[in-house]
Amino acid sequence: MSPWSAATPGMPIDAIDTPSLVLDLDAFDRNGALMSEWLSACDLRLRPHAKSHKTPEIARRQLAAGAVGICCQKVSEAAVFVDAGIGDILITNQVVGPAKLARLAALAGRARIGVLVDHPDQVRPLAHAVTAAGTAIDVYIEVNVGGRCGIGVGEGLVSLARMVGECARLKLAGLQVYHGPAQHMRDAQERAAAIVKAGEAARAAQRLIQEAGLPCPLVTGAGTGTFWHERDSGIWGELQPGSYIFMDRDYADNRRGEADPRFEHALFVLTTVMSRPSPDRAIVDAGLKASSVDSGMPVVWQRPELRYLKASDEHGVIDCSSAPAVALGDRLMLVPGHCDPTVNLYDEMIAVRGGIVESIWPISARGAAL
Amino acid sequence: MSPWSAATPGMPIDAIDTPSLVLDLDAFDRNGALMSEWLSACDLRLRPHAKSHKTPEIARRQLAAGAVGICCQKVSEAAVFVDAGIGDILITNQVVGPAKLARLAALAGRARIGVLVDHPDQVRPLAHAVTAAGTAIDVYIEVNVGGRCGIGVGEGLVSLARMVGECARLKLAGLQVYHGPAQHMRDAQERAAAIVKAGEAARAAQRLIQEAGLPCPLVTGAGTGTFWHERDSGIWGELQPGSYIFMDRDYADNRRGEADPRFEHALFVLTTVMSRPSPDRAIVDAGLKASSVDSGMPVVWQRPELRYLKASDEHGVIDCSSAPAVALGDRLMLVPGHCDPTVNLYDEMIAVRGGIVESIWPISARGAAL
Repeated sequence: MSPWSAATPGMPIDAIDTPSLVLDLDAFDRNGALMSEWLSACDLRLRPHAKSHKTPEIARRQLAAGAVGICCQKVSEAAVFVDAGIGDILITNQVVGPAKLARLAALAGRARIGVLVDHPDQVRPLAHAVTAAGTAIDVYIEVNVGGRCGIGVGEGLVSLARMVGECARLKLAGLQVYHGPAQHMRDAQERAAAIVKAGEAARAAQRLIQEAGLPCPLVTGAGTGTFWHERDSGIWGELQPGSYIFMDRDYADNRRGEADPRFEHALFVLTTVMSRPSPDRAIVDAGLKASSVDSGMPVVWQRPELRYLKASDEHGVIDCSSAPAVALGDRLMLVPGHCDPTVNLYDEMIAVRGGIVESIWPISARGAAL
Repeated sequence: MSPWSAATPGMPIDAIDTPSLVLDLDAFDRNGALMSEWLSACDLRLRPHAKSHKTPEIARRQLAAGAVGICCQKVSEAAVFVDAGIGDILITNQVVGPAKLARLAALAGRARIGVLVDHPDQVRPLAHAVTAAGTAIDVYIEVNVGGRCGIGVGEGLVSLARMVGECARLKLAGLQVYHGPAQHMRDAQERAAAIVKAGEAARAAQRLIQEAGLPCPLVTGAGTGTFWHERDSGIWGELQPGSYIFMDRDYADNRRGEADPRFEHALFVLTTVMSRPSPDRAIVDAGLKASSVDSGMPVVWQRPELRYLKASDEHGVIDCSSAPAVALGDRLMLVPGHCDPTVNLYDEMIAVRGGIVESIWPISARGAAL
């Protein structure tokens, strides 16, 4: 990591070293308040996904605002949050391999931990691990609705639920039903239709399990692109959005329906123009290692006349043919294409309010992929 | 970062936790030996680019094998290597802004440091910074040959060189001439032609500066995709390849001429199959946060029947329709699409020889983007 921090508290935003990850606290607070207000109108649990922020300070604020716990995507990521005092974590992933399962089982002795299964071969090793550790764990069966992980709705699902139910230290806690591809379908009606279909699968899966005499108390899932549709279905009891606190370019590109919640961009990559090689081109110091381009290029915030064209490791090429006054040393704010892997590039998040650095938050779970 | 390491020395490769970054030391050593052998047949300096590995142990090995120094891309990255005892670093980038320039100038008091300029407005602040720090620095003028940074060949170049030459603490050390886009032109003849053209620009630039009575002792540049063409030109005196030690999928996709040096894949992302949701699909635990997809998907090493289709944050989807025996818990090696930003995701590189973990190297400059 860098031997120095990009900022110190009290510093004006103009003095922050670049490239750096800047959180607009006012926008972040408004996003949180909008979610709280929205939740207060329905009877749903919020379990925000911490893979988006990897930052204990943000998890603490989400819990203080009413979240029941957080989601993590990896065992080591969850361990960072348990170390930071978070007491209720659902790992929304399958966990395979004896070393990882032993870590997971030990973690379940320090916090309430949930995990997913979608195959019988995952259940016995999980049961062995928690038995060896003398702990217990919540188990959610992942139902395949988005074409990634998950089991189909049928007899295999019931056998899997029965298998979990037969292990004393595994608590059959419900279903994970998350439609990943629906999050970024651009058309609002297409997103809604995908979740209606996912809801039908969830309802059928829940019914099958309950008809077999097994418990299935909770359906959990949903993301920033669709969570109000999961509410509308009446099937989900818990929602897992992560990006709503930040809003990246990719989510903002979704066309929204009139009643959809509208979150603001709160997370930015601050960058400096370091070369001005031709009238139409400015080169900034934020490239691939400062803003993940897996979901497309970042956009330049509040400067629609500038276009971020392409990135190499530590360079970004900006088309400034419509803004010839852009000069060496000018500072720009980028809205990342995809916030989750962008956050994962940084060791610190610089929390700014009214143009002044208020705090610097360690992104403690950055790189925790094990 | 993860609270635990993925491996311990002496462990068999099968016991390494995943996803993790694995270096095949035998292949790495052969790549280094091939480069040394190749260099011994010509009179060129090697200054490998450390942005690819960010790992002091690798820099030390490169210097021990005859490199004159290393390149870095950022001031904070260079600072990590100076802290690790590396004494000669060229920052192949423009450095803009007072905070960064003060850090750079201070660094030049601890090691031999070079930096690029391509605009008169960069020169005076740089001179002020080194004067304030009481240090001196090598300055290379970047000539624009690849459409990114750099100044054109003409009167502006001579004025810029004169400006540098007039500052007592700036040493006009030569030209940076690096053709980025040429590195990944797939056709061997197209790559060769691009470097011939870049060489003509370099020669013209050098002549202009020398005819103005100024020194221009060295042309430095080149990358893993083209460096033998820079040698053929007779113009470059120093080469800057970085990826040759690792070789990623993107470099391997270049069609090579018969006489081109052939490096091997030495860097892998080790991953585990964690879900097997359908006969044609296996889900592995290495996604966007384990292997950068900016230059396309990774490939599965020595398993041509498997195809890595797409990545989300912590999931990779593998088409295994031609290999139905792939099972939960199976471990695969991925060749990353682009090694530089992939290395930048990890805190440790697991150096393996003959299937056994030999060492674990800290990737100390990971995330050093300031």
